[in-house]
Amino acid sequence: MSGATIHFEDFRPGEVRMLGPVSVSAGEIVDFARQWDPQPMHVDPDAARDTLLGELTASGWHTCCILMRMMCDEFILDAASMGGPGIEEVRWVAPVRPGDVLTARRTVRESRRLRSRPGVGLVRFRFEMMNQREETVMISDFPVFFRCRDSGAAA
Amino acid sequence: MSGATIHFEDFRPGEVRMLGPVSVSAGEIVDFARQWDPQPMHVDPDAARDTLLGELTASGWHTCCILMRMMCDEFILDAASMGGPGIEEVRWVAPVRPGDVLTARRTVRESRRLRSRPGVGLVRFRFEMMNQREETVMISDFPVFFRCRDSGAAA
Repeated sequence: MSGATIHFEDFRPGEVRMLGPVSVSAGEIVDFARQWDPQPMHVDPDAARDTLLGELTASGWHTCCILMRMMCDEFILDAASMGGPGIEEVRWVAPVRPGDVLTARRTVRESRRLRSRPGVGLVRFRFEMMNQREETVMISDFPVFFRCRDSGAAA
Repeated sequence: MSGATIHFEDFRPGEVRMLGPVSVSAGEIVDFARQWDPQPMHVDPDAARDTLLGELTASGWHTCCILMRMMCDEFILDAASMGGPGIEEVRWVAPVRPGDVLTARRTVRESRRLRSRPGVGLVRFRFEMMNQREETVMISDFPVFFRCRDSGAAA
């Protein structure tokens, strides 16, 4: 935490940044799903043929986890992050398939200092994840708490 | 899918059922977080002492994945599930710590047949996850599509 270079003040409402790319293999889809979401369409290419989408697809929770890892690698681990209170919304709008290469468009929707906790701010993000064909696969809104660089003694 | 014994009609609004228990170890917390959410409070007991909660805690995404696995083991894999469109909301209201034993209270908030797709219904669940001290750790609302037993030709 003491080595953090990114603080609350560095997230400006309206700011857009791209994260990724990260590729997803069939093996990774099956490994994740065997552990956390072993439904036929996520763990068995043969059984997946009989399901709604007709082929192996990633668990939606896997796509969430891929996004979280992208966030960690690209800004959270360098930031004075204090975790998040939850998820506002996630929409899985198209399937993630083996071989897909995912990117995420991060938009700062809102940033505000907490009145209840001087020196801490909440940043509300939107993440739109896309595949290599620029099809949106997931839209997710969630907030993260960050320490302020300026502790805001006047707050 | 053809062997499914649980269908849309089996989820009645207001119905409550308990899922679990599932225990969570320090090793599982660290393994999950190393892969998906390697923030200090989730991967390193020593570093966690300097963070907000002062000790190792599970990634919120890990708690979501534990719930998904509970759902699979206790009803989804026996159901004519067609996956979900997303997450309506998740609130991480208290930390999950090493040694915690988690249960989930599943409530059917709403169930309705889709006009656009006869033979398919949407069930909106609420899951309240609790630890062994009956403290709520996570509240999550999300919907799942299920095939109907009665294909509803009149719909």
